[in-house]
Amino acid sequence: MTNWNLAARAAKMNPSVIREILKVTEKPGIISLAGGLPSPKTFPVDAFAKACEVVLGHDGAAALQYAASEGYAPLREAIADLLPWNVDPAQVLITTGSQQALDLIAKVLIDADSRILVETPTYLGALQAFAPMEPQVVAVDSDNEGVLIDDLAAKVGSGADKARFLYVLPNFQNPTGRTMSESRRAALVEKAAQLGLPLVEDNPYGDLWFDNPPPAPLTARNPEGCIYMGSFSKVLAPGLRLGYLVAPTAVYPKLLQAKQAADLHTPGFNQRMVAEVMKGGFLDRHVPTIRALYKHQRDAMLEALQREMAGLQVEWNSPEGGMFLWLRLPEGMNAIELLPLAVERNVAFVPGAAFYASDADPRTLRLSFVTASSAQINTGITALATAIRAYPRST
Amino acid sequence: MTNWNLAARAAKMNPSVIREILKVTEKPGIISLAGGLPSPKTFPVDAFAKACEVVLGHDGAAALQYAASEGYAPLREAIADLLPWNVDPAQVLITTGSQQALDLIAKVLIDADSRILVETPTYLGALQAFAPMEPQVVAVDSDNEGVLIDDLAAKVGSGADKARFLYVLPNFQNPTGRTMSESRRAALVEKAAQLGLPLVEDNPYGDLWFDNPPPAPLTARNPEGCIYMGSFSKVLAPGLRLGYLVAPTAVYPKLLQAKQAADLHTPGFNQRMVAEVMKGGFLDRHVPTIRALYKHQRDAMLEALQREMAGLQVEWNSPEGGMFLWLRLPEGMNAIELLPLAVERNVAFVPGAAFYASDADPRTLRLSFVTASSAQINTGITALATAIRAYPRST
Repeated sequence: MTNWNLAARAAKMNPSVIREILKVTEKPGIISLAGGLPSPKTFPVDAFAKACEVVLGHDGAAALQYAASEGYAPLREAIADLLPWNVDPAQVLITTGSQQALDLIAKVLIDADSRILVETPTYLGALQAFAPMEPQVVAVDSDNEGVLIDDLAAKVGSGADKARFLYVLPNFQNPTGRTMSESRRAALVEKAAQLGLPLVEDNPYGDLWFDNPPPAPLTARNPEGCIYMGSFSKVLAPGLRLGYLVAPTAVYPKLLQAKQAADLHTPGFNQRMVAEVMKGGFLDRHVPTIRALYKHQRDAMLEALQREMAGLQVEWNSPEGGMFLWLRLPEGMNAIELLPLAVERNVAFVPGAAFYASDADPRTLRLSFVTASSAQINTGITALATAIRAYPRST
Repeated sequence: MTNWNLAARAAKMNPSVIREILKVTEKPGIISLAGGLPSPKTFPVDAFAKACEVVLGHDGAAALQYAASEGYAPLREAIADLLPWNVDPAQVLITTGSQQALDLIAKVLIDADSRILVETPTYLGALQAFAPMEPQVVAVDSDNEGVLIDDLAAKVGSGADKARFLYVLPNFQNPTGRTMSESRRAALVEKAAQLGLPLVEDNPYGDLWFDNPPPAPLTARNPEGCIYMGSFSKVLAPGLRLGYLVAPTAVYPKLLQAKQAADLHTPGFNQRMVAEVMKGGFLDRHVPTIRALYKHQRDAMLEALQREMAGLQVEWNSPEGGMFLWLRLPEGMNAIELLPLAVERNVAFVPGAAFYASDADPRTLRLSFVTASSAQINTGITALATAIRAYPRST
């Protein structure tokens, strides 16, 4: 009998709650406001097809060969050019989606039982990526503008227990859709520098603003104190698994070695496809169409919520970009218990509890306004309101 | 001043010796017998171009969307069909190159200081993938037929120190090019089962046989006791980063969770491209052309060695497939010291010491016969012989 003795860290790994919910919601006819899937309408299929032709026609052998772990040089340069501060392409590392950047950061910065700080709530995928390295995850209290500076200072720890970093998603956060204000960013960067605390800034949604671009990234304010993560998943397509990080020289070499050990390099073919698509200012023309679509769908969701939730004592925010809206049920309700009532009525969402490192608010839930159409959003929110009305109240 | 406090495991990460050598050998005009790069002549560029058209034309939105962590179902089925034992597609996990399979296995099976067993010598990329999880790596003595069963039994350990697995590459091994014999395979599987020792079987080169296919995989003999790793890098192209593992139900769910945390999923576009290319028995027509080319180049290297190394007391083997040949210098010589003499003469190789977990044989070196052409191999081996003659002898 083979003795499959699993590593202790395997006990920390868990299937994504969201992916489990998505399986439940695959029944025909259900409107899913649960998933974080970009609208496939936004995928530039024709531009990719043309890019494939060019890449395989002109550079096929190199695109299909083993390549440098750092990434394809022209793509690294294009990324450095895109970013709104002075970035040396040598500090850009191409990753297999920005999820991989989280994995590499975890490997390089987290020891078992070391402290890391996250927002309240935070991105579930980050918690999953960090978990195998067995950190002690401490949630910093947060309001609508992001993490609270005083609570950050109170929780940073000291000595061997000093936090390794704060993981933060300032723009149109997943799950809440909230955006960190200019004043909070300035205060956070100042306090982090004072504490010597590294910041890990995740920015997959920053380009998806509706009326005004968000304030400058944290990293732009202190590049030596931050690792910045970006992604092409939301502005081009997630199925190519193409993300990147920008790291200071203090950590870049180790992140690169971790990358090499993890998968040698990100597919060179995909890197060339994206570099080819980006030529000639394509993103400047393409991304506004995504913004317009998502703004339209956010508006549809806000209108439906105002109409359907009247009198139900439900609260929600109005995200200024991104893909998600955050909703809070009336006192006494639990979003996990609401979910089956909603699924019965053909609508799905993600209970907010999934996104808390600790002390979850059971009344919260996340709604995506980008995967379903405006018409489906209307129907879905109507069904959600019906489910809320059907929820057994204890009073 | 930001306090970048690195994890202890970061000290175990090192840049690949091979990649550092490859950088040295990028000077113009050098013939590299060092790299493990498949010949770009073997990349089916036209078939990929056609597959891109089909995938983006018929299934573009799905190819570019987020997808299941397990992988693209038709590809998992095609892989199960390819393998020479009864494989349930549900046990196939698509990975971002087989390097990622090593990373996932390390995360799920290695605790800090736990023992793992490897061949002598072994694949450097595996040592790199395992290192961040901080195992105690124990090298099992090996001969031309693979690991020695008695030494395996002596080194397996017991109790908390019992080895978590033996990592083994039975076909046309990297770096030695050797193949495990039928009788050794049978003995190894029997002994491992008796010891309760899991086997991790890596098979990137198995299809590249020259005259006769190698004996059946270890996993085919005991699927519940083995994790099997395969790759499309050598039979199609490495630049797509597409590999897979087959694991028993005792470990598959944790490997899947580790995969999800590592990069969510392998690019769906690439998976569909390969599934499309494989249709209609493409590999049955394509792989024989690779075998013929590599056999021709192996023969060129063997002929050049026989001609040029006469009287130099150099030994080498005659690989029956794969990409590499293993050479041993005369007593008193050190391949690391030979390298600069060779590079001066415009030829590069990888010193064998890189591939030993411990007690390296400094006289060994690895030669690739697939990246350079036959003519270059001839010139390169001539230059290598000149370098050996120029090596200062102490006697």
